[in-house]
Order: sequence, then structure tokens, then C-alpha cells
Amino acid sequence: MERLDSIVVGCGPAGLSAALNLQIRKKSFLVLGSKVCSPWLEKAERVDNYLGFYGISGRELRDHFLDHAEKMGITIHSEKVSSIYHMGDFFLVKSGQKEYESKTVIITTGVHIEKQLEGESDYLGRGVSYCATCDGPLFRNRKVALLDYTEGEGWEEAAFLSEVVDKLYYFPLKDKKERNALANMEIEEGKPVALKGNGDLVQALVLDQREIPVEGVFIIRETQRADVLLPGLETKNGAILVNEMMETNIAGAYGAGDCTGKPYQISKAVGQGSVAGLSAVSFLEKR
Amino acid sequence: MERLDSIVVGCGPAGLSAALNLQIRKKSFLVLGSKVCSPWLEKAERVDNYLGFYGISGRELRDHFLDHAEKMGITIHSEKVSSIYHMGDFFLVKSGQKEYESKTVIITTGVHIEKQLEGESDYLGRGVSYCATCDGPLFRNRKVALLDYTEGEGWEEAAFLSEVVDKLYYFPLKDKKERNALANMEIEEGKPVALKGNGDLVQALVLDQREIPVEGVFIIRETQRADVLLPGLETKNGAILVNEMMETNIAGAYGAGDCTGKPYQISKAVGQGSVAGLSAVSFLEKR
Ligand SMILES: Cc1cc2nc3c(=O)[nH]c(=O)nc-3n(C[C@H](O)[C@H](O)[C@H](O)COP(=O)(O)OP(=O)(O)OC[C@H]3O[C@@H](n4cnc5c(N)ncnc54)[C@H](O)[C@@H]3O)c2cc1C
Ligand SMILES: Cc1cc2nc3c(=O)[nH]c(=O)nc-3n(C[C@H](O)[C@H](O)[C@H](O)COP(=O)(O)OP(=O)(O)OC[C@H]3O[C@@H](n4cnc5c(N)ncnc54)[C@H](O)[C@@H]3O)c2cc1C
Repeated sequence: MERLDSIVVGCGPAGLSAALNLQIRKKSFLVLGSKVCSPWLEKAERVDNYLGFYGISGRELRDHFLDHAEKMGITIHSEKVSSIYHMGDFFLVKSGQKEYESKTVIITTGVHIEKQLEGESDYLGRGVSYCATCDGPLFRNRKVALLDYTEGEGWEEAAFLSEVVDKLYYFPLKDKKERNALANMEIEEGKPVALKGNGDLVQALVLDQREIPVEGVFIIRETQRADVLLPGLETKNGAILVNEMMETNIAGAYGAGDCTGKPYQISKAVGQGSVAGLSAVSFLEKR
Repeated sequence: MERLDSIVVGCGPAGLSAALNLQIRKKSFLVLGSKVCSPWLEKAERVDNYLGFYGISGRELRDHFLDHAEKMGITIHSEKVSSIYHMGDFFLVKSGQKEYESKTVIITTGVHIEKQLEGESDYLGRGVSYCATCDGPLFRNRKVALLDYTEGEGWEEAAFLSEVVDKLYYFPLKDKKERNALANMEIEEGKPVALKGNGDLVQALVLDQREIPVEGVFIIRETQRADVLLPGLETKNGAILVNEMMETNIAGAYGAGDCTGKPYQISKAVGQGSVAGLSAVSFLEKR
């Protein structure tokens, strides 16, 4: 496997800005973004505070951003990163069934809003997973739930899971689209509130009105908590701790944009993205 | 005197970005910039790393910035701030003969390059001054030197001084324009290297080849060191020390852009400017 200079996780303003700097400095890198550019930015009706553009819509601004990246020869790969492992002097980045190696990572995954469920972090890796395509096979012939907090992104994961497990309880928690349940699947309603277990392994999903006995719970969110994405990463109230050079506590790992905390601003994301890109470049050149 | 909510010192990318946010939040403020926008930005032949604009010249980018500010109703006042004093719960901002009061200040004066002269900081306020229109009258009937490190900006100050002092030695150190000496003025050549005195007051300007006895030395630079501009401001190697909210060690004083240190980047300046603007707003709203 070719070891890349860098992987940029996320393709919002922060990720694209980091990528510009990596490209100018001729580094080998990938930009992996779960959706093209930024769901947040697209929702902005009118943006007045990104210097250079007056009274522009979020969508138009996004188009300028994507156009700039394209003209610089930057490709965005529509892939969601499920986990990153720090392997000493490189990073192993997993996205679905794919794996990449890189010398640095730049995390620009945006703000993480959803609260974790009670018990979620206790049972991580012991029944709780954030990636069906990665961990699904471990739950062969078992009963599992999939909580989909995205607008349908989890459906593909659910389809894959339903072929593997004994029974899949699929919770489309945000997606309004009518769907027909596949084999081994039940489409469920209700509000997940907690995970229960024996202290060692998950045993049930607790809803507001009832409980469902399961051995696995897959949770698909727009954005994962950064310290869940990259174990060992230092965060505070969910935000990645960075210094003024956008360095995290892990050498070679950088954070930029909304995932580093308030204020949530395009210009801040773009500025921090630049700095993170340049810091990665200088790290690579020092080695 | 009306006490303003804020004064933005500098009108480069950082200053304009701060101003956008003050304007959106309906604060009363002034933008004071010694030249319109940014001499640095104007020198950039081609900028590829400010997200949204591909392959643009520094001048064109500056025009987009100024256009944006203008459309938002922001006026830039072509004034150079000579000093800022922290008066407890407000700031006194001096520019030439004018004085302003504001509850907050946002310093975006860009990078400070010129080294100080030997003895300069020792004799500050004891013969050394950065503002002829402010301090000139103190040197009535004395011999003084004016070191002009700008492209002619100091000429006006020199003209004013020459009317007041006994003899003015004017050093155009960067400006190539031919000028005729005014009354009481000599236009000089040579490289200033140090200031000499009796430990208490300045007595001479030391040049590479000779010395001139003077009682005052006026030094006019494009950008002043931030801790000279605002006494008491904490800096490190000339860069303003800021935290992630762009707060300095002085409550109500913020720094953004190149004056806070490397990397020197438009996007970083714009992002930090936004954050500084928002921090000033939240400081004002808390009071
Ligand atoms: C309605 C609305 C209005 C707004 N108006 C303004 C405004 O006027 N001015 C302003 O400055 N800001 C505004 N904002 C905020 C602005 O959109 C954000 O600050 C900005 O988008 C942050 O950029 P970012 O790159 O840090 O993150 P985001 O734009 O959130 O981008 C993060 C990207 O990472 C991707 N991602 C997340 N996890 C993964 C993963 N595991 N693998 C791969 N990719 C992943 C996401 O899908 C997304 O593409 C507004 C936001 C909203 C919602
Ligand atoms: C040749 C060249 C090429 C460059 N290319 C790039 C590039 O490709 N990409 C990139 O990102 N960056 C580039 N830069 C750097 C970029 O121009 C700066 O990072 C950016 O301008 C910093 O913005 P700023 O607002 O912090 O400071 P500045 O742009 O320096 O603005 C500071 C402003 O404050 C004013 N000021 C100073 N003191 C006072 C005072 N006492 N009172 C009132 N006003 C004052 C100044 O006159 C100026 O208007 C380049 C710079 C140069 C010189």
C-alpha cells in the first residue's frame, strides 16, 4: 500500500482550505468527505461574513469553493471515514472496507451535535460500532439494531447488515423517505435513550417506551466525535484540542474548523484549514 | 467625546474581516488604516490559497475585499494610529492630533519587520517618539532627526516638525521621491544604527559613518511593534500573544492576522479577524 503524505478527513471549508495548501506544496494526499462539501454550508441562506463575497448563498459559496479546488486539481472522494488508528509513525485510515496509510491526518469533520446515548461509550467495541461494513460480519446470526441519525446515509449500511445478521432493527431517526423493509429487517420507530448490558457486552437497546434485546448496536451519524474517530485524541466538550499551529496531542494529527470548537464560522474554518495544511507540510519536511 | 464600541486598527484582511462582524452585530466602531487596505496583499502577484478565488492577483483580491466592506456600509478612515492607552475600562486611541475613546480595540496592524535601533526602547518617551504631530511641540527650538522608513508617509510629519524645531535632519530611508528641503530642514543620507544618550535623555543619532547631536528622534515605520503601540500588551518575538478567542492579556483588546505571528496568510488573517470581532461583540454584550 502506498503511504500517502496526508489524508484530509472532511471536505467542508476547513478541509478544502487544508487541501489547497497540500496541493501547492506538492504533497500526496486524499480528501475523504462523506458528502461533497458541507451540509452545514449548504443550509446557510445568506452569508455576509466571509470576506470577499457579499450577500452570497451558502450553496453559491460552496460552488466557488468546489470550483477553486477543482481548478487546483483536487479530487474529493465521497467516502466516510469510520476510524483512524495512530500506528506510531503513520496513520491507518479506514473507510468502509477500504484502508489507507498516511504520514499525517487533518481532521475537519465539522461540529458534532448529537449527544451520545447513555452507555454508548462504555460499550464501544463491545457491541457498539459506528461502521456496519467494517464490523457487521462480527454479528453474523445475531440480533442487532442500527440507529440512523443521517438523512438516509445509514440505509446502505442497513442493507448490508440485513444480509449478515439474524435480525436487524432499523431506526430511520431523521430520514423521512418511505422504504420497504428488506429480508431479516424491521423498520422501527421510537426514541433511543440508552444501551444496557452486563457490564461486558451490550444486551439491549432502551427506547423511550420499550426495550429491544440485541447484541449489537450500530450508530450512524453525520459526524462522529473526533475522539471516537481517532482514539487517543484529546478533546474538550467534544472539540479537538489544538494549539495555534492546529497541532493536536498526537504528532502528525491536525484539527481545523468547527470540530475544534466555537465560534462556528466559515472564515475561521478556512483560516485554520490553511494553518493545519501548512503545519502538516512542515512536519513532513522535517522528517 | 462619544465612546465607541470598538476601534479596528488596520484595514488589511484581518481588520476588514473583524469589521464585517462588528457591522453585522450593529456595533459602533471605526476602522483606522494607515493606507487603504494592505500594502502586503497588493504586492502578491498571484494568490491561490484563499478559498473561493483561484489564481487571483493580490490587487484584485483586495478590490473584492474593499467592495465587500463598502457594500456592508463600512468606511475606512485613512489615519495612522500612533498610540493606544488602556485607561481601565476604555481605550484612548491617538491618531495624529485626533483622539478617540472606545470600549474595545482590535489590533490588526500586520507583520512588523524592521528591527528596532540599538537604544530605541531605552529612550522611548525620553527623546524617542513615533508621532511628530503628537510630540513635536515638546521639541520646540531643538535639534531633532526624523527617520522615515515608509514610502513617503513621514514627509508630512517632517513638514510639520520643521516648523516647530530649530533644525530637522530628515532621513528618507525608503522613499525614492526627489524633494526639496523646507526651512530648518536638511535631507540626509546614511544608515541609522543606534541612539546614544546620557542614560536619561537622547543626545545623538549614530549613523554607520558619523554621529549627529540631537535631542529628539522621530521614527516613522509602516507598522509599529504592537507593544509599542499599546503599552502593556504581551508579545513574543514581536507577535501579539493571543488565545484561541484572539484575546490578549488586556481585557477588551484583541489581536488578529499577521501581527499575531506566523504563518503569514490571508486566510488565517481573515479567520482570526472574524473571531476577534465576535469576541469583542461578546465582551461588549457581557458588560
Ligand atoms: C443554517 C446555517 C447558517 C450558517 N451561516 C453562516 C454564516 O452566515 N457565516 C459563517 O461564517 N458560518 C455560517 N454557518 C456555519 C458554517 O457553515 C460552518 O462554520 C462551516 O461550514 C464549518 O466548516 P468545517 O469545514 O469546519 O465543517 P463542515 O462544513 O461541517 O464540513 C465538515 C465535513 O466533514 C464531513 N465529515 C464528517 N465526518 C466525516 C467522516 N467521518 N468521514 C468523512 N467526512 C466526514 C461532513 O460530511 C462535511 O462534509 C452556518 C451554518 C448553518 C447550519
Ligand atoms: C509578495 C507577497 C505575496 C504574498 N502572497 C500570499 C499568498 O499567496 N497567500 C497568502 O495567504 N498570503 C500571501 N501574502 C501574505 C498576506 O499578504 C498577509 O498574510 C496578509 O495581508 C495579512 O493580513 P493582515 O490584515 O494581518 O495584515 P496586513 O495585510 O499587513 O494589513 C495591516 C494593515 O494595518 C495597517 N497599519 C499598520 N499599522 C497601523 C497603525 N498604527 N495605524 C493604522 N493602520 C496601521 C497597514 O498599513 C495595513 O493596511 C503575501 C505577502 C507578500 C508581501
